[in-house]
Formats: sequence, structure tokens, C-alpha cells
Amino acid sequence: MINLNSLALKYTYDSTSKKVNLQLLDQTLLPHQEKWLTITSTPEMIEAIKNLRVRGAPLIGVAAALQLAQMAAKEFNADDLMNQAQALYEARPTAVNLMNCIDHMKKVLLTSQDSAAFIQTAIDLFYEDVALCDKISTFGANLIHDGDSILTHCNTGGLATAGVGTALGIIRKAFENGKKIHVYVDETRPLLQGGRLTTWELKKLGIPFTLITDSMAAQLMSLKKINKAFVGSDRIAANGDFANKIGTYSVAVNCHYHDIPFYVAAPFTTVDPDCPNGEKIPIEQRTPEEVMGAAGSLGVDVYNPSFDVTPAKLISGWIMDTGVFTQEDISKGCFAW
Amino acid sequence: MINLNSLALKYTYDSTSKKVNLQLLDQTLLPHQEKWLTITSTPEMIEAIKNLRVRGAPLIGVAAALQLAQMAAKEFNADDLMNQAQALYEARPTAVNLMNCIDHMKKVLLTSQDSAAFIQTAIDLFYEDVALCDKISTFGANLIHDGDSILTHCNTGGLATAGVGTALGIIRKAFENGKKIHVYVDETRPLLQGGRLTTWELKKLGIPFTLITDSMAAQLMSLKKINKAFVGSDRIAANGDFANKIGTYSVAVNCHYHDIPFYVAAPFTTVDPDCPNGEKIPIEQRTPEEVMGAAGSLGVDVYNPSFDVTPAKLISGWIMDTGVFTQEDISKGCFAW
Repeated sequence: MINLNSLALKYTYDSTSKKVNLQLLDQTLLPHQEKWLTITSTPEMIEAIKNLRVRGAPLIGVAAALQLAQMAAKEFNADDLMNQAQALYEARPTAVNLMNCIDHMKKVLLTSQDSAAFIQTAIDLFYEDVALCDKISTFGANLIHDGDSILTHCNTGGLATAGVGTALGIIRKAFENGKKIHVYVDETRPLLQGGRLTTWELKKLGIPFTLITDSMAAQLMSLKKINKAFVGSDRIAANGDFANKIGTYSVAVNCHYHDIPFYVAAPFTTVDPDCPNGEKIPIEQRTPEEVMGAAGSLGVDVYNPSFDVTPAKLISGWIMDTGVFTQEDISKGCFAW
Repeated sequence: MINLNSLALKYTYDSTSKKVNLQLLDQTLLPHQEKWLTITSTPEMIEAIKNLRVRGAPLIGVAAALQLAQMAAKEFNADDLMNQAQALYEARPTAVNLMNCIDHMKKVLLTSQDSAAFIQTAIDLFYEDVALCDKISTFGANLIHDGDSILTHCNTGGLATAGVGTALGIIRKAFENGKKIHVYVDETRPLLQGGRLTTWELKKLGIPFTLITDSMAAQLMSLKKINKAFVGSDRIAANGDFANKIGTYSVAVNCHYHDIPFYVAAPFTTVDPDCPNGEKIPIEQRTPEEVMGAAGSLGVDVYNPSFDVTPAKLISGWIMDTGVFTQEDISKGCFAW
């Protein structure tokens, strides 16, 4: 009996009876309501990914893989699984972890034609992500000192990964190591992943924090109230540029202007060595309603890119599961494997 | 019969019957509802100012002065008017226009003890603001070229002044002069003066615009989609530093990084020559609920400064009713009169 449990995903699998149960915490309802959705079909999983019921670059990759495992347990039809894999692959365009996980599943499907191996691959991807988060957190926590005030953007914790998270995992690890820290949480418009999700996680963990609008971070920097910034990533290009939730680039520019270290944290599954630079990362455009929501349905023209690109030159360090990379490491091509 | 009409304020006064009618468009209800409030007492006006039913640095000064005129028409009691003037003076701390207008009214009260002169002073302040807006708009519109894409933050138009506005007045003037322009409107969290009010004005004027979250402006700059930024101000210090709606400073830093001209537009009534620099400008802190609103009542710690300070060094030009001032003008002390 396999039993996977993370903050936002539950998967149980009985290899004898072939019974599977796959559940997602509906993140669109947080923090008001903690409702678990049972996912039984691939269209349901795609709907959950597209509508951000499940989100976070590492987690959507793992969730999509486990969805394929669920389908394989019901009936192992390679052609059918390949079609479903492709549909999941296309659910959202920016986070490369989704594509990497699906590619990995497809490869096993093509090479082994074995149901058990295919299912085990998805389970392994879950455990791998947990381990990657632990490694990232350990490396990153060393960069945090007693008394640090840390800015973070969007949500990069247990809700965004199978493990403790990336940027938020680092913050958690530093706190659990006894460092006195304070976190400033960008609310992260338009969908408020900071205001709704990161605050929910930090509250559960007992880590002191203050919620701000995205536009307040620069002012806090000018008042010397922020001395480090940590963010996650949806895709890192070979030259070190990375895409992350819209607003990340503005944080990076402001950190640069105020001489504040700005770190990106992500597992190697976020690196896209085939993508030469940030300009080549496909940026998802989402519906105008997400922006108009807070302003009322005005029926006005809206621009709503879900992500932006931060160039490598603005980054103080890339915190990966294999260590903290510097500008020099990047220029040597360490992401262009 | 005096009849003052602006986009958000109506004042009629019959000097024979002494009948006054003072109305404000409740800006907290826009764009959903256009509801005019009749203001009959000073506590009502103070409530309207504190809760941003009437807002915009120039307009709250004019509205407060007209409220004193209304009270003087009912009964000219100098002591009583002085007390009410002081209460209005303290309604909001950052916009110096309110204090300047009240100081002006107090001075007339102390020197003339004449009801008609006192009432006329408030009426003159209204007309003066209309004229100041026209002059600012004319000077500023010369800085806008055909094809410009302009970023603006908060609301600085007819809803914020007695006239056409400051930064938005400039944009309007350029458009009316036949220049092909596009406006990017920061929604301006937390209270969405951009998303609710600037979009409402631009729509009425037929000026093409796109609504964005505050966090998207930097990304648009990196894509070279913005080539000028115009904002208003609540107080300009003697050294040229200025306070404006929270988020303005982040716009200025991003403009600086991307080599985009960043202009502040304001009448001379916004200058506080007694305030040596931005650090000395009192910044209003508002309730946490304004930030939590979009995120749900989480009961979390919130930081909510209503304004931030942009240092003179980040400003490409100060567009005033007397012309466009440069860094050199400022360093010669033109605001330290």
C-alpha cells in the first residue's frame, strides 16, 4: 500500500486491488475553506491545473504524473496513456517541470510497456521532489542570518511542491534552525497566492510575517526593512534567466537598485537546458477577469501575463538541489547540460 | 448664483438666500455606482475625506475649503469656523494641499472677519485649481509624442482635482491635441484608484488604455512597451522629493532602471517649502482591512502605508503650473521659497 501525503496532494495506491485515490486540496478556496477534491479522470486533473486548484511548478508536474499512474492502474493502454500524457503536457505552458515530468513518464511508457514500472515512476517523482526540496532548503538556509527580514513573492512552499517547498522551504528551514527572521509577503496580484497561500502556510508554521501589496516592497527596501529576497521559478533557461510569477522581475529590479541579494530557488527539474534564454520562455496569458476581479467587471482592456522573466544579471544566486550557483557558474554553462 | 461643477464635486451658492448645496460623488462606489452625497456638516466632510469618498490631493483641499464656506453661509462664527478648519486640517496627514487650503481660509478668517470674503476665498480656490490643472496639462502635454505609451499610477484626473487633473490631465490634453497615445493603468492596490477610477475616466474620454496589476509595469518596461511615466503628488518637499500613492516609488525605480522618463505633475499648492526632504513628509498608515480585503479576512499582520516617497534623483521633470522644472532648477532651490 502506497500512501503519499503532502500539504496539497494525497495519493493512495493498493497494488493488489489496483485501487487508487488521488486528492488535491483546492487552492482556489484557501484560506477560507480547506476542501479536498477527488480526481478520477485526466480532464478533471487538467481542469484543476488550468484553474490553479493545484499549482506550483514542481507540484503540477508530480500531480500530472500521478494522474497518469492512476489511469494506468485502472487500465494499462499505452496509446491511451500517451494521449492523456500529451493533454496534461499542454495544460499550462510556462512551468517546465510539468513537461519534464510528463516526458519522463512517456519515456518509461515507450521503453518498458510495463504498468508497475510506469506507476512506480510517478511515485518516484513524488519522493524525488520531496528530497529535492529538502536539499534546496538546506543549501538556502545557510544564506539566511539571524535577524534577517526576507521578502518573498507568490507561494513556493508545501502548497507548491510535494515537499517543504523551494524559496519558502528555505525560509522554513532557517526558522526551524532557530534563526530569528521576519518574512514580508507580497500579496501577488492578480490571484493573491502570497496573500491567500503563503500567509496560510506561514501562519501554520508559526513564522512571523507581514502581508504587503506588491507595490509596497520597494518602499520597505528604501527604508532598509528588507535585506534578502527569495523567490521560486517556473522555468530556468540555460543562461540562468528565469520565469516566475508576474511581479518577480519588479522585485529583482528593486533589489538590484537597493543592493539587496535576490535569490531564486528551484530543483533541477525547473531547468530547461534547451531554452537558451528568458526571451524564449513561453509566457502564459490568462483571462482579463483575474485582473478585473478586484476592480469590478468594467469590461476594459486588460493585460494579464501570468509570469515574467528575470535576467540572470539581476540574480545573486541560484539555489538548487545540488548547491548554490553563482553568476560565474552560470556563465560556465552549468545549466546548459 | 454661484455654480461650481467638477467631475466629483458640485457646489451651488445663492448669496441672497445664503442657500448652499455641496455634493460629492462617492468615489468608493465607482465604477459600479455613481452616487452623489450631499454634505451638510463638517463631520460629514471629514468622514468623506478619511474614507476616500472624496480624494486626490488638490480636490480634498478645495472640498474642505468649500465645506468651511458652506458653514460660514449658514452662520458666520469665526471661533467655530476656526475649530472646524482645524478638524478638517487633520483629516488626512500627507497631502499638503489640504493644509495649504485650510491655512489660506484661516488667514482670511483672521484678517477680514467678513463672511462674503471668506466664502469667496473658497470659491476662488476651486477656480484656481481648475486653472492650475489647465496650465499643468498644457506644459506636460508638450512632453508627450505621437505614439507614446504612457504608464500612470493611481488617479490624477477630474476625480482628483477641481479641473482636468494633473498627470491624467496631461494625458488628456495630449490626446485632445490629436496625439496617438496608449495608457497603461496600474490598478493601484490596495484601494484600486487606477482600476476603478482612472479606467472610468479614460473610458469616458475615449482614450485607449490597458489595465494592469502594479506588478506588471516592470515587465512591460522590459518589453519596451512603456516609454514615459506620469504620476501626481500629495506633497513635494523643498528638495524635490515627493510623496504619492504607495507604489509610485517602485514605478520610479523601474523607470530609472529601464531609462524611461518619469515625471511628476502637481500644482504649486502641492509644494511644502517648509519640508526639507521626503523623509520629513508624514506618511499616513491605513487599516489592515484595505490590504486583506482582496485576500480574505485572514487576521494577519499587515503593513499599509498609503503613500511612499520618491527621491528627487529619480525624477526626470516636475511639471508644475509655472512650467517644467529640471534637476538643475530643483538644486537651485526653486521649491524652497
